[in-house]
Amino acid sequence: MGTDYVHGYTAAETRRLTDQARTLADLLHAGTQYEAGARVLDVGCGVGAQTVRLVTGSPGIELVSVDISEDSLAQAKARVAAEAPNAQVEWHLGDLLDLPFEDGSFDHLFVCFVLEHLPEPQQALKTLRRLIRPGGTITLIEGDYGSAFFHPRSDAAQVLIDCLTDLQALAGGDALIGRRVQPLLAAAGYADVRAWPCTVYADETLPHLVDGFTRKTFIAMVESVRERSIAAGLRTPEQWREGIRDLERAAEPGGTFHYTFFKAVGRIPDGAEPCG
Amino acid sequence: MGTDYVHGYTAAETRRLTDQARTLADLLHAGTQYEAGARVLDVGCGVGAQTVRLVTGSPGIELVSVDISEDSLAQAKARVAAEAPNAQVEWHLGDLLDLPFEDGSFDHLFVCFVLEHLPEPQQALKTLRRLIRPGGTITLIEGDYGSAFFHPRSDAAQVLIDCLTDLQALAGGDALIGRRVQPLLAAAGYADVRAWPCTVYADETLPHLVDGFTRKTFIAMVESVRERSIAAGLRTPEQWREGIRDLERAAEPGGTFHYTFFKAVGRIPDGAEPCG
Repeated sequence: MGTDYVHGYTAAETRRLTDQARTLADLLHAGTQYEAGARVLDVGCGVGAQTVRLVTGSPGIELVSVDISEDSLAQAKARVAAEAPNAQVEWHLGDLLDLPFEDGSFDHLFVCFVLEHLPEPQQALKTLRRLIRPGGTITLIEGDYGSAFFHPRSDAAQVLIDCLTDLQALAGGDALIGRRVQPLLAAAGYADVRAWPCTVYADETLPHLVDGFTRKTFIAMVESVRERSIAAGLRTPEQWREGIRDLERAAEPGGTFHYTFFKAVGRIPDGAEPCG
Repeated sequence: MGTDYVHGYTAAETRRLTDQARTLADLLHAGTQYEAGARVLDVGCGVGAQTVRLVTGSPGIELVSVDISEDSLAQAKARVAAEAPNAQVEWHLGDLLDLPFEDGSFDHLFVCFVLEHLPEPQQALKTLRRLIRPGGTITLIEGDYGSAFFHPRSDAAQVLIDCLTDLQALAGGDALIGRRVQPLLAAAGYADVRAWPCTVYADETLPHLVDGFTRKTFIAMVESVRERSIAAGLRTPEQWREGIRDLERAAEPGGTFHYTFFKAVGRIPDGAEPCG
């Protein structure tokens, strides 16, 4: 979180997150619908791409959206005002590891694309647990850059994907966190943990996904670290030219692209002490 | 095919294929049900693991099962006799690139875990096309060893997976073929091609898949090339010890495993000349 957020707080990044949500919304939010009246905490809402989906997908919830970036929070407010003007959202600027809400004061927590940026995701999940009432749930969604593979294969493209993973690690995060959401939730003390892959596969017969995912989500995500990686001496402009050219081939006719997000749900047992 | 079949014709391999089919049958055969009376060609039936599913999943079809290995074909016959005794299967020993059947004499072709072993899969698909009547279909199923990722991560385990991919390439095949089934079918002249991933994800909350897939399918598949890779000097016994130990950690509580098969269907246009 904060200034180490690996993708950067740029307009391009804002658009990428928006495109991602619009393309992947059905995939990522499938199965997530909260009961009317439920008090839900949207942890690390960023620019609000998922927040809009939460309020439109679960009408009547009381949503509290938290982020550590004042600028992101302002963008999220504007987005919700524009796209879901009737939604009631309480906005909170703050660190998810130090939130002022009372124990057990939420029915559900929603944590999407947040843990990948944290140096201690398991500890964060433990810290968040106290906020959920007995019987309430937490939902995690994370990507895993190690799940990306494509045709035609290309070492030059892989070099760029590895660069993004390396930068995430240098910033204290884990770009390969998706594969371990189940063990993370279980080790943090949640019950009834279930995890499953949400796979995106795109080829020329699926032009919406080629454009919305391969190009505007994945390649855009890799592109978001280009300048930083060159400035840090991790990759050369020539490596970027070759790698992006090859990734774009996967979005052309005859190319294919595969990526997996992971989603997991855990529960606080009925009758548990909320501060666990 | 033939003696270069990378997994080897061993009892362990036969059991692996059986376990794979029993565990993955619902996943791989979902959506494949042929109309009663349809004449279906089971191309490269091997030891019959999928053949049993074809005759039980599509009652009343006329199935012709072909393989190039006499020994595999004998095992397939015995398996069908034991597991689907009422099924009518016509068995044929022969090379899928040189089959004696008339043009357009099949309604559907089913080709599962076969193309990965062929040096020219696109040419094979073109050759097979003439066998299908106008309006008939071909179904492909292939794995992709590049889709395997797991927790805890391990370079030692990856070294073994790469070994299997290398051996497959040395034998003229492509262990990473799953990602390109759609372009292969399209380039071979099939119409209305659709492809999709069939993802297996296993963690401790899914003990059936941990045992049936992670251990008895994937790790068994990697193990199947141990002796050959050591004999060829590609990997050392110590590398095998470390790599298999790490893969087994992915099957223990706290571990996770992900693998993707790809399935694709193509069609011969109505009114097309069957020999295209």
